[in-house]
Amino acid sequence: MIHQEILIVRTPGRCTTDLSTQIGAVVGRSQVRTGIAHVFVQHTSASLMLCENADPSVRRDLETFMARLAPDGAPWYAHDMEGPDDMPAHIRSVLTSNGLTLPVGEGRLLLGTWQGVYLWEHRQSSHQRRLVVTVQGEQH
Amino acid sequence: MIHQEILIVRTPGRCTTDLSTQIGAVVGRSQVRTGIAHVFVQHTSASLMLCENADPSVRRDLETFMARLAPDGAPWYAHDMEGPDDMPAHIRSVLTSNGLTLPVGEGRLLLGTWQGVYLWEHRQSSHQRRLVVTVQGEQH
Amino acid sequence: MIHQEILIVRTPGRCTTDLSTQIGAVVGRSQVRTGIAHVFVQHTSASLMLCENADPSVRRDLETFMARLAPDGAPWYAHDMEGPDDMPAHIRSVLTSNGLTLPVGEGRLLLGTWQGVYLWEHRQSSHQRRLVVTVQGEQH
Repeated sequence: MIHQEILIVRTPGRCTTDLSTQIGAVVGRSQVRTGIAHVFVQHTSASLMLCENADPSVRRDLETFMARLAPDGAPWYAHDMEGPDDMPAHIRSVLTSNGLTLPVGEGRLLLGTWQGVYLWEHRQSSHQRRLVVTVQGEQH
Repeated sequence: MIHQEILIVRTPGRCTTDLSTQIGAVVGRSQVRTGIAHVFVQHTSASLMLCENADPSVRRDLETFMARLAPDGAPWYAHDMEGPDDMPAHIRSVLTSNGLTLPVGEGRLLLGTWQGVYLWEHRQSSHQRRLVVTVQGEQH
Repeated sequence: MIHQEILIVRTPGRCTTDLSTQIGAVVGRSQVRTGIAHVFVQHTSASLMLCENADPSVRRDLETFMARLAPDGAPWYAHDMEGPDDMPAHIRSVLTSNGLTLPVGEGRLLLGTWQGVYLWEHRQSSHQRRLVVTVQGEQH
């Protein structure tokens, strides 16, 4: 059984947005009991990550880590057509992931207690991001 | 056809554990002949990786690489509730992967000759890690 | 419905090769209308990435980024059996991905407008790389 939905998420600029509830709702609508849910961002300057969901300082430290590793406006970037945050956004996407596959069991996402699914906007300005969620498995 | 199992792995602290045989055994029990196997760690301070399985110095160098990139106790971490290895464990997990999808063919994992599936414990102390393995495809 | 094919790609040495058309063709042959396509590289010194496909300077900057982060012949590598590009190739593979899962809808890959699927050869010399593509879903 296959269920596929498009999610549109408007990000407020560089930050993380918790999508766990939205993706859980797609799994609910799919009526899949056991299987996998695949989430995919159709962009190369935003990505997905699984992250500790209890203390927001973890995600702030991850922003700091990325800003140190691939700073905006590094002098050696050749690609800067859309500004100083253009190339670092691509680097951050490649280091994290455009897609996540998550297990589904008993009709819900089998995430760990402290795991959240986050959309990570890597551009400084607000963007509309398009995600494809595909749920596959055995139905109830 | 779907087959899902939970694996519990006790890690001895920061290191890599080869899970290739255990995951291959789940594929065997699934009776799936052609399809995919998805392995997922329900934690955000341990991760999965595919790595060269012949020379252990590759995995030692990967530890060194990560220790240089995200050292324990870096002064700029805001998140250090569980100690100096808390935040670097989250960074290492985000840079690698919480989940791996592997092809299945002729009833077995289609890994390359030198590919092993490793659980990478990023915390210094021993932890019990919970994995969900989901195998999907056509049966024998 | 499952469809699985092996692709053999000869790389000319360290560089990226656009596989989007080849993988799209496998999806076409699978006759899967809605589902997922999984692409897997059976090696640990080459990887896959989704990248901006309009301006080649993005991929050149990604090469520069990786060369700065994991330079060939860094003095601290213990593993250098196959030369100065051996260990950095493993590091680059672990930081990117050996596998990509992509959504399929209306019988084709649901990539974003600016997304390309690239095989990233991390070794300096030409290599023959073996990929397994598995397409799962509902047929037409």
